[in-house]
Order: sequence, then structure tokens, then C-alpha cells
Amino acid sequence: MPEHAAPAKRRGRPRGGSDARQRIVAAATAEFSDLGYDGATMRGIAGRAGVDAALLHHYFGTKADLFGEIVGAPMRPDLKIPEILAGPRDRIGEAILRYVLDVWEQPEARRRGILVLRSAIGNKVATPLFAGFLSRELLVRIAAGIGLPDAELRASLVATQVAGLLLARYVLRLAPLADASVDELVAWVAPTIQRYLDAPSP
Amino acid sequence: MPEHAAPAKRRGRPRGGSDARQRIVAAATAEFSDLGYDGATMRGIAGRAGVDAALLHHYFGTKADLFGEIVGAPMRPDLKIPEILAGPRDRIGEAILRYVLDVWEQPEARRRGILVLRSAIGNKVATPLFAGFLSRELLVRIAAGIGLPDAELRASLVATQVAGLLLARYVLRLAPLADASVDELVAWVAPTIQRYLDAPSP
Repeated sequence: MPEHAAPAKRRGRPRGGSDARQRIVAAATAEFSDLGYDGATMRGIAGRAGVDAALLHHYFGTKADLFGEIVGAPMRPDLKIPEILAGPRDRIGEAILRYVLDVWEQPEARRRGILVLRSAIGNKVATPLFAGFLSRELLVRIAAGIGLPDAELRASLVATQVAGLLLARYVLRLAPLADASVDELVAWVAPTIQRYLDAPSP
Repeated sequence: MPEHAAPAKRRGRPRGGSDARQRIVAAATAEFSDLGYDGATMRGIAGRAGVDAALLHHYFGTKADLFGEIVGAPMRPDLKIPEILAGPRDRIGEAILRYVLDVWEQPEARRRGILVLRSAIGNKVATPLFAGFLSRELLVRIAAGIGLPDAELRASLVATQVAGLLLARYVLRLAPLADASVDELVAWVAPTIQRYLDAPSP
């Protein structure tokens, strides 16, 4: 069936309208659930949905794009962080933290971010999927961008601090963190991220 | 919330045997759910369970003890951290982190800790309860022990790093963190905690 047309945000939307789209989303969800993030392939998803793999790429982009869209990810650090890593080295901690907090300060992005975090942690099927996406699309890229010993460990340590901060401020809403300004949080926490990314290995 | 039938370690068991115990656990669960951690009272729980408040205290200790027992908390940082804060000031970051990781390295404690974290974050009713417990029993006490400006914010920042590390290592099992030794993690992360607790406010 011919599928191209109504412009979605960045990509086309399959013509059979919401039918084809729903079929692809259902197929991708099943593929990710069955095989995990690393095991899932765009070809497999296309097969399940009964559409051509090239067409799937054309409409939904990469596996990371498709996953981000399915989980309703409010930000795509896999796209933004490499850009930040290419900037001034001594401001990376601050740049990462400001990027993340600026996104989460927007109510709609925060609402979706909380949903993603809740299901990534609260749901046993979602947990390894989310971890796979995080590792493959984000941590490995940061590690490649750092080019230091222990690069993957460093990237993962950054993830611990950022995730813990998001949880405590936006999900648990611990008062001192929920009440702090973005500037205050950056002043406290950016040096942590900076240290994980550029201090000598202990 | 999981009920566990294992005998209470330090305290007696209500005479009526497991009936009275189950009634108290059910009453406490309802009270915490209805009123939140801060709003729940031992008197209210005793009333719901139809037992005397003094008896409830005698068998279950404080509200924190009862909550910790109901959620199956694998550790009681509210009891241990003040002890650590009374020790050498320049090793507090390391002492806190070693205490937490040593507990979580034990399989049974880890299993229960993961359950508690999952439900604290994944379950909307459990989230504010857990946050209330954390604030009231842990963060406020750490803050009092620090005696510095921004004490509650500092304590909360420690919580972000510790929680993020536990999540990433034990729940998401991100490979570089899951594979690291406790000593490696302490070497990387203890300075973060130490800085939050004793660096000048930025």
C-alpha cells in the first residue's frame, strides 16, 4: 500500500493514515518487548508490521527515533549530547545539566519525562529496554566523545547523577530540590558531572 | 506493599499472633496511604487496628520502624547515617557510600531494595509516601547533623547521587556500573558526596 504524505513533525506519516501508523507502533512495541533494545531490528519491525523496511526508515528514521517516539521521550539526549561534547571542554558539565533541566522545566516535557522514568523503573519489561537504549544510544556515544580511560564508566556515572537529580526533583519532589532554581542546581551539580567527565581516573 | 511474615528482629510480636500482626500491618498501610507519611500517626494506626497505641509502640517501635517494616526496607539509613555523621568529617562521603553499597551487595537486601525503589518510583501512591519518609527520617536528620548553610539541600543532593547510583547499578544494571567493584565506585563517587556535605555553598 502506498504510504507517504501528511507531514508529521520531522518525518512523513504513513498514508493508510493512523491504521498503518498504529500497526507499526504495535509491531515495534512487540519487537522491543520480545528482543530488547539491542536485539530489535528495523527489518524485524517492518516484517511484523507488513511494511517495507526502507519505507519504515523513511518514515520513522532510526531505531532510536522510533523508540524515542514510542516511549514519548521528551528529549533526545542521544542527539544533543554529542553536540555538547563537541563544545568547550571545561563547560560540559554545566552544558549537559542546563540542557536537561531546561527541557524538564517545560510542563509538557516534564509530564512525559516522568512517565518514561516511572515506567523505565517501575515496569520489569520496560527496564532492560530503557537501559539498552540508554547504553547504546547515549552512554556509548558520550564515551566515544570523551576519549579517556574508563570512558563508559564515566558516562554511566554522569547518568547516575542526572537521573537521580531528575527523580528527586521531579518525581519524588523532595522540597529543597523542587524549590531550588535551575541556577542553584547547576552550581551544585555541574562540577560533579564535569569531574566524572574529565578528572583523572582515581 | 509486601507483608513479610519473618519475625520482627528487635521487638516482640503482638500476642494475638499473626492475626493481630496482619491487622496492624493492614491498618498502617491504609493510614499511610490515606494520610501520607507525615500525616499518619501511631495513634491513628492503633485506632484502625483496634489495639492500644502504647502496645503498638511497644511491638513496632516508632513510625519509621513500622514504615520500614511494611515496605520491607532492606536498610534503615535513618538509624545508621546519624552514626556516620558523628564520625570523622573528612570520610563521611566514603562511609555513607560504603554502608549503602555493602548492604545492597547482599542478595536478599538487594532484592528487597529493588522492590522498594521500583514501587517508590513506579507507583503513584507509594511515591509521596516514600518521599515523606526520606525527608522526615533521613534528610532532616542529615541536615541537622551537618550544621551548615543549605543543609537540607546538601542532604538532598547526597540522596540524588546515592539513589541514581543504586538505580543504575542494581535496577537498570548499566554494564560499566554493574561490573565495577565497590572500591572503584567508592573512589569515583565518594568525593561527590563529600563535596555536597562539606564544600562551601557555591
